[in-house]
Amino acid sequence: MKYGIVAFPSKKIQDLANTYRKRYDPHYALITPHITLKDAFDADESQMDQISSSLQQVASQFAPLQIHASRISSFYPTTNTIFFRVDPTPQLENIQKMIQEKINFGAPKHVFVPHITIAQKLSASEHDDVHGQLRMVGVDEKDVIDRFHLLYQLEDGSWTTYETYKLTGAE
Amino acid sequence: MKYGIVAFPSKKIQDLANTYRKRYDPHYALITPHITLKDAFDADESQMDQISSSLQQVASQFAPLQIHASRISSFYPTTNTIFFRVDPTPQLENIQKMIQEKINFGAPKHVFVPHITIAQKLSASEHDDVHGQLRMVGVDEKDVIDRFHLLYQLEDGSWTTYETYKLTGAE
Repeated sequence: MKYGIVAFPSKKIQDLANTYRKRYDPHYALITPHITLKDAFDADESQMDQISSSLQQVASQFAPLQIHASRISSFYPTTNTIFFRVDPTPQLENIQKMIQEKINFGAPKHVFVPHITIAQKLSASEHDDVHGQLRMVGVDEKDVIDRFHLLYQLEDGSWTTYETYKLTGAE
Repeated sequence: MKYGIVAFPSKKIQDLANTYRKRYDPHYALITPHITLKDAFDADESQMDQISSSLQQVASQFAPLQIHASRISSFYPTTNTIFFRVDPTPQLENIQKMIQEKINFGAPKHVFVPHITIAQKLSASEHDDVHGQLRMVGVDEKDVIDRFHLLYQLEDGSWTTYETYKLTGAE
């Protein structure tokens, strides 16, 4: 089964992201707006207890995540993905790193750039148009996220929540 | 904010339900297949701690839910909704009743009929066609659901998970 680990920002930020995703993100219907903490990885259902208890440990160590979505950016030319850039912080880097260490399935595909995707799989010219427009509009939203979630993927690509982990630590 | 309480069945049952929902359920993209334990209700974010601790109490009292989706049925003529009928059990009735008592927001709109929706908002003739076909196909899936979830709704109608409650009791 395919699993992923994400943090959902506040409803306000999700609603804002969805105003763009509705038009520009073909994954719009598969999952609500999120910050990916660990990309999709394969694991067996029998490993879930161990994975879940590792994530519980992570959650008990970290405090709620202080985030600031400060501008609209793009992964171009790597991909045509446009996103709310979330300012990197030691806290975000440390939690992502600890999750990666504890859940030793699937190497990270790329350097961790905290973000909330708002557009992807656009053609090159669409990407340039949309990025040009949205970069001017920008974003400036702060939020505190007090939990993260382990999800699993259905055959149609959509994601269901398996479990919630509340951030109750001090880091 | 609008909240709802659901139990997600196994991936296998969700995948099966989605083969129908994809074609026949306009809510397909808003939420993955589920059994509703409490219909959407309005609550203030300030009430979430109290609601969450009530749900924790419920979860600590009940054992994992034994379910059997035993046939395909319809709410016609009340609505044109077609669903996997989940056999009612004292356990399902008791947990639904206890959730309703503890979370005293929004009276239940109808008698509790445990089900997983696979089609809705069809025209009368579509409903009759689809129901006629699916009733013959039927469903026969047993499952044990060891958790339920509190969700909240975004402005576009989609649902994000707020919290997971594991069923750890004996009832």
